[in-house]
Amino acid sequence: MPRRLQTRRADAHVVALLTDFGCAGHHAGVVRGAVLASDPQARVVDLSNGIPAGDIVLGAWTLRWSWRHFPPGTVHLAVVDPGVGTARRALAAAAGGQFFVGPDNGLLSYALRDAGAADVASLHHPGAASGLSATFHGRDLFAPAAGSLSRGEPLARLGARITDWVRLPEPLVSSTGPGRLAGEVIAIDHWGNLVTNLTARDLARAGIGTDATVRVGRRAIHGLHWTYGDASPGAPVALINSNGHLEIAVNGDRAGEVLGARRGGIIRIAARTCVNNAG
Amino acid sequence: MPRRLQTRRADAHVVALLTDFGCAGHHAGVVRGAVLASDPQARVVDLSNGIPAGDIVLGAWTLRWSWRHFPPGTVHLAVVDPGVGTARRALAAAAGGQFFVGPDNGLLSYALRDAGAADVASLHHPGAASGLSATFHGRDLFAPAAGSLSRGEPLARLGARITDWVRLPEPLVSSTGPGRLAGEVIAIDHWGNLVTNLTARDLARAGIGTDATVRVGRRAIHGLHWTYGDASPGAPVALINSNGHLEIAVNGDRAGEVLGARRGGIIRIAARTCVNNAG
Amino acid sequence: MPRRLQTRRADAHVVALLTDFGCAGHHAGVVRGAVLASDPQARVVDLSNGIPAGDIVLGAWTLRWSWRHFPPGTVHLAVVDPGVGTARRALAAAAGGQFFVGPDNGLLSYALRDAGAADVASLHHPGAASGLSATFHGRDLFAPAAGSLSRGEPLARLGARITDWVRLPEPLVSSTGPGRLAGEVIAIDHWGNLVTNLTARDLARAGIGTDATVRVGRRAIHGLHWTYGDASPGAPVALINSNGHLEIAVNGDRAGEVLGARRGGIIRIAARTCVNNAG
Repeated sequence: MPRRLQTRRADAHVVALLTDFGCAGHHAGVVRGAVLASDPQARVVDLSNGIPAGDIVLGAWTLRWSWRHFPPGTVHLAVVDPGVGTARRALAAAAGGQFFVGPDNGLLSYALRDAGAADVASLHHPGAASGLSATFHGRDLFAPAAGSLSRGEPLARLGARITDWVRLPEPLVSSTGPGRLAGEVIAIDHWGNLVTNLTARDLARAGIGTDATVRVGRRAIHGLHWTYGDASPGAPVALINSNGHLEIAVNGDRAGEVLGARRGGIIRIAARTCVNNAG
Repeated sequence: MPRRLQTRRADAHVVALLTDFGCAGHHAGVVRGAVLASDPQARVVDLSNGIPAGDIVLGAWTLRWSWRHFPPGTVHLAVVDPGVGTARRALAAAAGGQFFVGPDNGLLSYALRDAGAADVASLHHPGAASGLSATFHGRDLFAPAAGSLSRGEPLARLGARITDWVRLPEPLVSSTGPGRLAGEVIAIDHWGNLVTNLTARDLARAGIGTDATVRVGRRAIHGLHWTYGDASPGAPVALINSNGHLEIAVNGDRAGEVLGARRGGIIRIAARTCVNNAG
Repeated sequence: MPRRLQTRRADAHVVALLTDFGCAGHHAGVVRGAVLASDPQARVVDLSNGIPAGDIVLGAWTLRWSWRHFPPGTVHLAVVDPGVGTARRALAAAAGGQFFVGPDNGLLSYALRDAGAADVASLHHPGAASGLSATFHGRDLFAPAAGSLSRGEPLARLGARITDWVRLPEPLVSSTGPGRLAGEVIAIDHWGNLVTNLTARDLARAGIGTDATVRVGRRAIHGLHWTYGDASPGAPVALINSNGHLEIAVNGDRAGEVLGARRGGIIRIAARTCVNNAG
């Protein structure tokens, strides 16, 4: 219902920050200040400032996994913006009862896809003449826009409606035979766990149950478990994580290092009968 | 007064987060969102997200040292939970005019002991059927409980009262003779300082004054000082820290590395006369 | 207008934290709690807790670059305080429509200089008798003072007015000939970029335009660019950053490491004609 969303007010005054600014520097802090300068009633919370520098794809996954857990009316202010100062557009969007502000480089696109019908505006660009820096749009462009939405300004006033925002491609889930799927490692988390793009829904559709075998390189992991503690210390464990994705962990260690796996690496999973057939 | 605490309202709407989720990832951010989704008026602040992964004991010390400095009605949301998804219980507690939510693994136990009479509930467990993940109770179980308390829900509605929550043992302070004590290093802080379990009260009871000698391995440090700057650069200094614990620092360096000391290492202290006798 | 500032209320209840406490430990968290205990309506946000331990100068630059972007009435609570517990004074100040609290070691001095006429008070010191620790004035002295200002207490009640607060010297911008300036690297940021004390205003006064040549050690960088993406990958780029300072970056890499430059290192810039003359 884009029409309704456009007039929806952000009574929550919650602004959630997602950036690659890191914990140490003051850039995230200045953005917090600029949001508060725009909406003095805002409550600014961090989703994360730890996205690796310029990693738009991981930023997009992070927002996809997170936005639903925030209250209605939350403004998600996302700045992973290696193209700052170039001709890339700046976006504000209303979707799923929440708001999203960030560069038009795909960062918002997974969340907008999942949230369904989205109203998206290309932000009016104040231009360098009005004091806009070329290198810190987080402070000068995105934070004021987020504050405007947070204090209830209609989206339509922030920019002209567009429909051709940049969409990131979805990493491929490929069927490699009956009861067999291949996907890839899309993230390695804080604990070194391998997060894949294979979801519980993908597995169910392919008829793959908890007695499946997961293959990471030459390593075979038998069975899908319920939680990390189900594996003996040092052993790998495959499970469906809290976002519905197949994840591979090593109990008490970093799976990425133990299994020699990297982002983009192929992960295969096969239902039990297939494994038997293969053996 | 458990009866009174149970009905006490958390007018402050302050929720303080203590986790081992780290600064970089989005897990702490999603928990913040889930608290706000449960209590739209909450103000979520971080106590710390830097507890080393799974370090329940350091989490418990951190909460013990910190909770008193928050306003009445604060909800402390503590998640250091290596047993997530196993049969361990989940707790909510009212004690000392504040609230505490976290896993029943000892994490809350030092704070509850210091806060005196505590009302503790074992959280009703919604179960996987209702969408509870097995691996992210911080988001799905603890954050909603913290939000409930923050918006004034009585503790009794969150779960059944229990008295047998898990208590961590206290590290031993042993008397090794008149005017002599031995304790241990319980934490090495951000600056590399050694924090011991020996407190100003322990020293006073044992008749140990500021002219004491502290021994770390083979190193003897003479005198208890008032502040870090009292030592010459590179020299070790012993002092009573801001939480009342004996602490050993090295002016301008990391005491743990300079003195070769680790967590759990023994620290001895002796009153002046004892040192003379020993010599 | 010091007289008016003294009675100005901090209706925003925003308290912004700048410390060298790091992300991992609980010290920043306890300070947040102590602010909230003093002003239950405060909204505490981090400017940064990542100032290197004891680096008063970088703390002072950070505050100078940031305070303007916060809303009127913000209380900046700055604690980079290697002299904690010594005789150094503690300050609270009103300037530029905002408030500043911190040790009297120069940390606030750049911001106060830029903010113009400042009302500065030397905080009444409660003393150890009242429970003031010698090592954690952030919690015991500065946070309560920040909370007092945040809830609208007049500055004059917090301490006696002074005018002789510690001022940090400004790093020298020297003219080395017509159309030639020398300055220094004052910070290396999160991305490894070199931030200098040379500002756009300095360059304009010296008649240096965008066709200038910047020298870092033996390396010459031609032209001032608009944004980071203007350089080819791996190439150094000089630009005026979002705070108006000359900055040297390396596209996709860490300039400090690539160029072998350190804080305090000399940076030279020359207008085009000068370069020709020199050649």
